[in-house]
Amino acid sequence: MKIGVLGAGSWGTALAVLLADKGYAVDLWHRREDLVDEINFKRVNSKYLPGVVINKKITATTSLESAVAGSEVVVLAVPSHTIRDLCIQIKDFVNCEQYIVNVSKGLEEGSYFRLSQAINEELSYNNVYVLSGPSHAEEVANKLPTTVVVSGEKKAKCELLQDLFSTDYLRVYTNPDMIGVELGGALKNIIALGAGISDGLGYGDNSKAALMTRGIAEISRLGKILGAKTETFAGLTGIGDLIVTCTSMHSRNRRAGILLGQGESLENVLAGIGMVVEGVKATKTAYELAGKHDCEMPITTGIYKILYEGYDPKDVVNQIMTRRSKHEIEEINSLYYYGWN
Amino acid sequence: MKIGVLGAGSWGTALAVLLADKGYAVDLWHRREDLVDEINFKRVNSKYLPGVVINKKITATTSLESAVAGSEVVVLAVPSHTIRDLCIQIKDFVNCEQYIVNVSKGLEEGSYFRLSQAINEELSYNNVYVLSGPSHAEEVANKLPTTVVVSGEKKAKCELLQDLFSTDYLRVYTNPDMIGVELGGALKNIIALGAGISDGLGYGDNSKAALMTRGIAEISRLGKILGAKTETFAGLTGIGDLIVTCTSMHSRNRRAGILLGQGESLENVLAGIGMVVEGVKATKTAYELAGKHDCEMPITTGIYKILYEGYDPKDVVNQIMTRRSKHEIEEINSLYYYGWN
Repeated sequence: MKIGVLGAGSWGTALAVLLADKGYAVDLWHRREDLVDEINFKRVNSKYLPGVVINKKITATTSLESAVAGSEVVVLAVPSHTIRDLCIQIKDFVNCEQYIVNVSKGLEEGSYFRLSQAINEELSYNNVYVLSGPSHAEEVANKLPTTVVVSGEKKAKCELLQDLFSTDYLRVYTNPDMIGVELGGALKNIIALGAGISDGLGYGDNSKAALMTRGIAEISRLGKILGAKTETFAGLTGIGDLIVTCTSMHSRNRRAGILLGQGESLENVLAGIGMVVEGVKATKTAYELAGKHDCEMPITTGIYKILYEGYDPKDVVNQIMTRRSKHEIEEINSLYYYGWN
Repeated sequence: MKIGVLGAGSWGTALAVLLADKGYAVDLWHRREDLVDEINFKRVNSKYLPGVVINKKITATTSLESAVAGSEVVVLAVPSHTIRDLCIQIKDFVNCEQYIVNVSKGLEEGSYFRLSQAINEELSYNNVYVLSGPSHAEEVANKLPTTVVVSGEKKAKCELLQDLFSTDYLRVYTNPDMIGVELGGALKNIIALGAGISDGLGYGDNSKAALMTRGIAEISRLGKILGAKTETFAGLTGIGDLIVTCTSMHSRNRRAGILLGQGESLENVLAGIGMVVEGVKATKTAYELAGKHDCEMPITTGIYKILYEGYDPKDVVNQIMTRRSKHEIEEINSLYYYGWN
């Protein structure tokens, strides 16, 4: 069995190594020839996954055709904003028997599409699966215990992918709620940004825990409107992924938030970090979606005001804290509402 | 309006200060006369809440009768294993108009009672409420933004307590699911112990996020059997409180776990910490409850084996990671089950 992994960033490389260690032949595609050569001849990926030996069952290549054609499973591990382009490029090489497994997180700008929707639109193809969860690539590559979730339309195929990726250090769960799994991964970065802002303001653990818990609550409120299941957001791809993102200094979103909380302008923050800060775009997307669907998202709205309307973070926190009193779990028209009645 | 706070530990003192700052007259009871004198004459509580000025509207006392009689609200803020004894002592001073608000967390040993059940048994009294959530006392005393939940049988009375405790730095939600609120606070310490063990073993953020997420999942599985609502565990008193406990070095449970993960014996760990490590007893209680109700709790069972049966933590982690593959959300007989069908 051959597997094609498209994208030799840290996560794509870590998954390629895991699969090769399990005995599969892996073609690892990357657009940059120097990176491909380094992997093939030095058996390392010093830029994205330093310190990890690349198994010899991995063949790096700059040819999408050779990575895709003949592979039973094709893993998409490119930055989320490049997914649609990639799909256009591989369209002629894929066939309807192959599994497409997306491991990137994000929403498409403008269309508000989940990535699987964008992929399906280009590939006219229904075997699209997603793998997501709290998984720093470096830790998986170092075989530290990690859990992830596979989701997609067909149960039996999800279970096959579950077996494919499972090892004694990677425990794979399945979840039929693809909408929830994808939204959790994409929207958690908003809250990571907020957690950073809270840290930057000098607030404590109470504030951050509140932000994370109520943040996931409002994301799951929006998610439900968009067709997701509430429980998914309480799971590995929701709060689990959020916990990893909010506690790690590796998170660009959190680092950006800290600077914002300390009073830096968005322009300076983005210039200083010099890379995409996914939460900044995700905040705009979620804010617009919330408006469109009339969904109350006070934390997202607050972060939007800080990012795009120049509000002072302290004032925003004060507004959120002093809103009208609420019941903790109250979703109008919700199947899950319960109360005193 | 007078309020009696019983117990001048860090949380009792912080709540007394908050209430006094709002203008209420507060009687703060403590059994130790030197502590009471320090509060009354030096306006500090140097042992439990150093650095905080005690508002003059607080009168400390060693007399339970004077703290309880004439108070419209009585806050119980003593260690959880002393709650029943305290109730026996105040039985003659309480009346059925008073609100009893318990802010301690735990389960009664032997009886497996939630604290409100033990309180009700002694006071033959139904106005028992609980206040819980992610709230380090030191941070509340320093007015850092914090959220908590009030729960109890009567909605209107919960809302009154919501108003009583609300400030611009303490946001109070209500939740009718008292069983879930109490169980979350009591059982989260098991997972905090596990998070410490994971850290002690040298595992990373992925492992800890997995442990927290799947830990809350199994606690909510047990909770549902005991009559709680699943959503409560995804809220402030469940995952929210767990996040605070697992990320703080103040947590004795986490510190104990780290030592266990590093290979120390339970005896040495407890001797070294020299104080109650709630998670150790909570693990036994939950393990026994799970057995009694035939509820699958792999993480709790694993921690039980480490604590009480001398298993090696690494072996336990390996067992948990390599169990039969699972769907992420599958609760037999659950109203909330959803799947591919």
